[in-house]
Amino acid sequence: MIVTTLRPGERIDQLYSQDIQIIQSPEVFAFSLDAVLLANFAKLPLRAKSQTVDLCAGNGAVGLFMSHQTKGKIAEVELQPRLADMARRSVALNGLEDQLTVYEGDLTTVNQWIPKDSVDVVTCNPPYFADLPQSQKNPNPYLAIARHEITTDLATIVATTSGLLKMNGKAYFVHRPDRLLQLLELMTANRLAPKRVRLVHPKPGKEANMVLVEAIKDGKPGGLRFPAPLVVYDENGEYSAEVGALLYGES
Amino acid sequence: MIVTTLRPGERIDQLYSQDIQIIQSPEVFAFSLDAVLLANFAKLPLRAKSQTVDLCAGNGAVGLFMSHQTKGKIAEVELQPRLADMARRSVALNGLEDQLTVYEGDLTTVNQWIPKDSVDVVTCNPPYFADLPQSQKNPNPYLAIARHEITTDLATIVATTSGLLKMNGKAYFVHRPDRLLQLLELMTANRLAPKRVRLVHPKPGKEANMVLVEAIKDGKPGGLRFPAPLVVYDENGEYSAEVGALLYGES
Repeated sequence: MIVTTLRPGERIDQLYSQDIQIIQSPEVFAFSLDAVLLANFAKLPLRAKSQTVDLCAGNGAVGLFMSHQTKGKIAEVELQPRLADMARRSVALNGLEDQLTVYEGDLTTVNQWIPKDSVDVVTCNPPYFADLPQSQKNPNPYLAIARHEITTDLATIVATTSGLLKMNGKAYFVHRPDRLLQLLELMTANRLAPKRVRLVHPKPGKEANMVLVEAIKDGKPGGLRFPAPLVVYDENGEYSAEVGALLYGES
Repeated sequence: MIVTTLRPGERIDQLYSQDIQIIQSPEVFAFSLDAVLLANFAKLPLRAKSQTVDLCAGNGAVGLFMSHQTKGKIAEVELQPRLADMARRSVALNGLEDQLTVYEGDLTTVNQWIPKDSVDVVTCNPPYFADLPQSQKNPNPYLAIARHEITTDLATIVATTSGLLKMNGKAYFVHRPDRLLQLLELMTANRLAPKRVRLVHPKPGKEANMVLVEAIKDGKPGGLRFPAPLVVYDENGEYSAEVGALLYGES
């Protein structure tokens, strides 16, 4: 039996489709659908010698949700000690210490742990909101750093991603549609060729509120594809079949 | 009664939803769904003093299909004399000579007819395929020029579009998804801020095969939106309700 210490306000949630348990705290960080969709959109090599890195890892949700895809190693990089600690305890809770490692620190220092040009896959669910002076900050500092570009920005994240990846390595990002153009431009400027963009719509007939992007390091320019969109809820307000399966498994 | 002279191989087709007749010739040029979707995606000012320009106009389908939206003028610019002639006869066939003018010539010379910085809306259904040496050309020269970047290219078209538009004027393009990134980059480099991207999927579950883009001249960067996609056929192979209405009118 695994003994897990929960800190005040924490709880254990479960992603039923993958039998993964994860320590959450609404006051500090709780994964959302974004993490589930990113972990599913990313395609990891199965081989044991592969290396995947999740940047801006938060409480480790994306890395945990991808772990069933590969026999290789997954590194989770998170700046905030409180969140990195939650991620480490969730890794232990799932008995995945041999596969997942949590590195605590700024992503610009990632090469102290993981060499340049060595990684097969980088995933990232970055802070969504540009840290413009006029924007309303979340008064909770944990959530503010996770959601706003306070301690990093998209340019730094994309450059770090490209530096980590080996040639033909793949980057997977989730972001807001209104940042897609900037993300694609930064990728192109950093030797990452965008290859696949999947839009996520909250309901049928509604505009997209999330976007998933796949890029290949040193890939041939051009050939961008847009698979059928993902629609989260159906007309009746129930999860769509696809999202239901991602959350609860095939029924 | 309007007397229309058809040349060999020509026929008159109808867009029932708008009661527009159009002279077509499969051997020379026939409008396709792209033109109907672009004409509907574009939003023209109603006012009589407005000026809209359709570049790469072909047989004039896009301009004809937009004519019900506005009391203003629409100019159609087409390089190929054979196609410009068809467009002129279609304009006459619909009795729209006061509203639509067909200009025959290269789009880089458009300012001999229409001043710079004077236009409210520019639409364009450009040649889709880059004229790479290894690409298989269509042996029919009319179709080759309409489909391949032989006599112009996307950079020239976007620069011409931006030059025509007044500040806050709007550009509407239809293109292939694999050219979207280049189109967005060219727009941004030419003072056109992309604002709306609508993907077109042939059937539910299939990747997009067409994309519609709206941009604003000197618009504020950022804020790109992705409305719900357009799906052409339903699961049974029938036109979707939306496309059916565009082709045949509201039922």
